[in-house]
Amino acid sequence: MPEFLRLLPPDEARALLLSHLSAPVADSELVDSASSLGRVTAEDMVAPHPLPEFPRSTMDGYAVRARDTFGATDSLPAYLNLVGEVLMGDVPAFELQTGECALIHTGGMLPDGSDAVVMLEYVQSARTNEMEIMRAVAEGENVICVGEDVSQGAVVLSKGRMMRPAEIGGLMALGIVQIKVVRKIRVGIISSGDEVVDPSQQPRRGQVRDVNAYTLSSLVMKSGGEAVLYGIVPDKLSALKEMAARALIECDMVLITAGSSASTRDMTAEVIGSLGAPGVLVHGINTRPGKPTILGACNGKAVIGLPGNPVSALVNGYLFVVPVIEKLLGLPSDKPRASVMARLTVNIASQAGREDWIPVKLHRSERGEVQSKSDAYDAEPIFGKSNLIFTLAAADGLLRIPPDATGVSAGEMVEVALL
Amino acid sequence: MPEFLRLLPPDEARALLLSHLSAPVADSELVDSASSLGRVTAEDMVAPHPLPEFPRSTMDGYAVRARDTFGATDSLPAYLNLVGEVLMGDVPAFELQTGECALIHTGGMLPDGSDAVVMLEYVQSARTNEMEIMRAVAEGENVICVGEDVSQGAVVLSKGRMMRPAEIGGLMALGIVQIKVVRKIRVGIISSGDEVVDPSQQPRRGQVRDVNAYTLSSLVMKSGGEAVLYGIVPDKLSALKEMAARALIECDMVLITAGSSASTRDMTAEVIGSLGAPGVLVHGINTRPGKPTILGACNGKAVIGLPGNPVSALVNGYLFVVPVIEKLLGLPSDKPRASVMARLTVNIASQAGREDWIPVKLHRSERGEVQSKSDAYDAEPIFGKSNLIFTLAAADGLLRIPPDATGVSAGEMVEVALL
Repeated sequence: MPEFLRLLPPDEARALLLSHLSAPVADSELVDSASSLGRVTAEDMVAPHPLPEFPRSTMDGYAVRARDTFGATDSLPAYLNLVGEVLMGDVPAFELQTGECALIHTGGMLPDGSDAVVMLEYVQSARTNEMEIMRAVAEGENVICVGEDVSQGAVVLSKGRMMRPAEIGGLMALGIVQIKVVRKIRVGIISSGDEVVDPSQQPRRGQVRDVNAYTLSSLVMKSGGEAVLYGIVPDKLSALKEMAARALIECDMVLITAGSSASTRDMTAEVIGSLGAPGVLVHGINTRPGKPTILGACNGKAVIGLPGNPVSALVNGYLFVVPVIEKLLGLPSDKPRASVMARLTVNIASQAGREDWIPVKLHRSERGEVQSKSDAYDAEPIFGKSNLIFTLAAADGLLRIPPDATGVSAGEMVEVALL
Repeated sequence: MPEFLRLLPPDEARALLLSHLSAPVADSELVDSASSLGRVTAEDMVAPHPLPEFPRSTMDGYAVRARDTFGATDSLPAYLNLVGEVLMGDVPAFELQTGECALIHTGGMLPDGSDAVVMLEYVQSARTNEMEIMRAVAEGENVICVGEDVSQGAVVLSKGRMMRPAEIGGLMALGIVQIKVVRKIRVGIISSGDEVVDPSQQPRRGQVRDVNAYTLSSLVMKSGGEAVLYGIVPDKLSALKEMAARALIECDMVLITAGSSASTRDMTAEVIGSLGAPGVLVHGINTRPGKPTILGACNGKAVIGLPGNPVSALVNGYLFVVPVIEKLLGLPSDKPRASVMARLTVNIASQAGREDWIPVKLHRSERGEVQSKSDAYDAEPIFGKSNLIFTLAAADGLLRIPPDATGVSAGEMVEVALL
C-alpha cells in the first residue's frame, strides 16, 4: 500500500521524533515535598547544611577516645571512667577527657573529645563508674561524621530527577519541605471515527464506544502527564483540523486516535501536515501491532496519529507517547524499564525485519525448585487478533521480538516489559 | 543481645505476619472508571453484552461470502458484483447475496449474508460494479465475530484486580463507566524518638528531622494505601501506647518508626504487646538492613516497628509493609515485581544465613554491542553506612543476596528490584 512505502524500524522512528522536539518543558510549580511522589525536579537541589550536622553514633555503646582503647582485648581490657550518658536529642553536658567514656545510644551526639564508639556488647562494668573495654576501636568507628551523608552546598538531587520515597526522605532530612517540580506534561487526546461514541452512550448497531481516549489518558497520567480530552470528532477534515489546531496550542503534545480505516489515516496525516513544520515524520512503522502509526512534529511539539485498534494504540502509546513525555519532563533517556525475566512456554515465529510485541501472561513456574529468582516465571503468549482489548487486559506484560529475530523458541529466557 | 535470640529469615517472618491478618478489607467505593488507575476491583466485573456486538471487519477490503471466493487466484479471479459500501458507524443498508461483494473499512459492520473480508490489495475493479477477487478467503477471515473479545456474562475482571490502562479501556468498551474499588488501605504512621523533630522545624544541636514518616507515607501512597500521620511521640511508654491504640482503631495497619536505640525498640515491642492478641510475632529478622524490625499482629491488624535508621526503615517498608497493603487490597501474592537484570561490577561478600539488600546504581553497559537487552546494564553497589538516606536516593534499585549465599561475584548477572 502506497502509504507504507518505507516502514521505519521503531527505534529509528522514535529517535527521529524525539530529535524534533523542543527542549524539556521549562514551567515549574511549587509543591510540598511530602506530596511530590512521581514528580520531576525543575532545578538542582542543594544541601543547605551538612547531613548529619553533628557526629552521631551508629550503635548503642560507649563514646571513647579511640587511642584509649588501643590494644584492648577480652584478656587485657582498657579501663575507662564513666562520666555520664548522652541523652537523645541533647547536646552532651560534658566533654570527654583522656581515660573517660560515656554511655551513648544509636543516633546520639558524640561528646566533644570523643572520636569513636565501642559497641555495648564489648563493654562491662568493672566497678562504680569504671568500665572495662574489651575491644579496640579505630578513630571514627561506629560514628557518622558531620557531612558524611551530604556536605553543605552539595547537589543532592539534580534537575530532572523523579521523586521516589528515598528522595522525599532526603529532602525532609534537610528541611526542604517544598520543591519546584516540572509541571505535568499536557497531552491533548482527540478521538476520531464516525463509528465511535462516548463510553457513557448506548451505541447503535455499527457503532462502538471510545476506548483509546481512556487507555491513552491512563497511560499519560501514569507517566507524569495530564490528559486533556477533546472528545470525538467526526471524520471530516475541517473539523479534525480545527480541533487539532486548538489542542496543539493548549497542550505540549497531541494524540489523534484515528478511525481504523486507510481513509481516516490519510486524513490524520493531512491534518498533521497542516499544523506546522515539518509535519509528518514517519508514516508507517515496522512493528506489530502498530504499523499504521504516524509520527509528526509541528513547531517543536509531537503530534502522533495512533491506529483505531485499541491494542495497537496502547502498545504504540508505550513505544512512542511515554518517551515524549519523559523527554519533556527532562528525565534521562536511559532510565531502566521495569521488566521480568521469564521462560517462554511455546515457540513464537516472527517476520524478520519487523519488531513484534506479544502480550504474555506470567505464571509462577511449576518446575519445582527454581534455579534462581529470575527463573521463577513462565511467559505464556496470549494469541489472538490484535484488536481485542481484553487480550491486553489479560496480559501481565509485553514480550519484544527484535527486528533481527525470526522468532523465539520454547524454553528460552525472555525479557517481559511489565504493563 | 537478648532481643535477637532468634532471628527469623525474612520470607518466614513475612509469611507469619500475613497469616495473622484478617481477610482483605471489604469496604468499597464507587469511582469513575476513567480515574480508577491503580485502584483494585472490589467485585467481579461481568460483561453486560458481548464484545463486539456485531461482526466487524479487521481490514480495509471487500465483504464477501467466503464460498464465492473458493479457488480464486491472480490468474483465475472470482468476479463479484459490487452492491455498495458499508459506512462507518452504520448498519449496512443491504444484505449480501451469492455472487455479491461490498466495500468495507476496518471496524465496519459486516452486512448480513457476508462471512469474510478480502483485503483491498487482492481486489481490483473489473468493470463498473464488478470486482475481481484474486485471493480465496475462509469463513470468518479478517472478521471479528460477535463475542470474540468477550461473551455476554463473562467475568472480564475478577475481584482483586489492579486497574491498568488496558483494564480501563476494556471497561469503557463495555460502557462500564463507574466501578466499585476497594477503599485505600489506611496506614497509621507514628514517629517516636526524643531526638526527632518535624521537618519544617530547625533542629537544635543533637536533634534530627523526621525522615521515616515521609519515606514510608510515600511508599504507602505508591502501593495503594493512604498514610495517616500521627506526628512525633516522645519516648514515653504511656504516650506511645495511647497514640498507637488510637491509630489501631482508626487505621487498617500501624507503623511505629522507633528511635534507633535498644531501649526505644524495647518500648515499641511493649506497646505492640499491649494493643491486642497475639502482639509481637517476630522480634529481629535475619536481614541487613533491618535486623531490629518488629512484626506484630493485634486483633487481625498488622503493627510493625521499624528501625529509626532511615535506610533500614524504607527497605523494610518494601519487604513487610507493601505485602500487607497488597494482601488487604485483595491482590494476588505472586504478582511479578519490577526488576532489571544487570551485570554486577564488583565482588560482594555476605554473611551466610543472612539476607542482604544492597543499594545499586544501574549504568548502561559500556561493553560495546551488548549481547541481549538483559545484558544492557551494569549494577554498581553503593557501599556506605546503612544510615545514609542519600545512599538510597542515589540507588536505582536493591540487589538481594539470598540467605544461602556467601556473596556474589563480579561479572555475575543479578536481579535488581527497582525502587
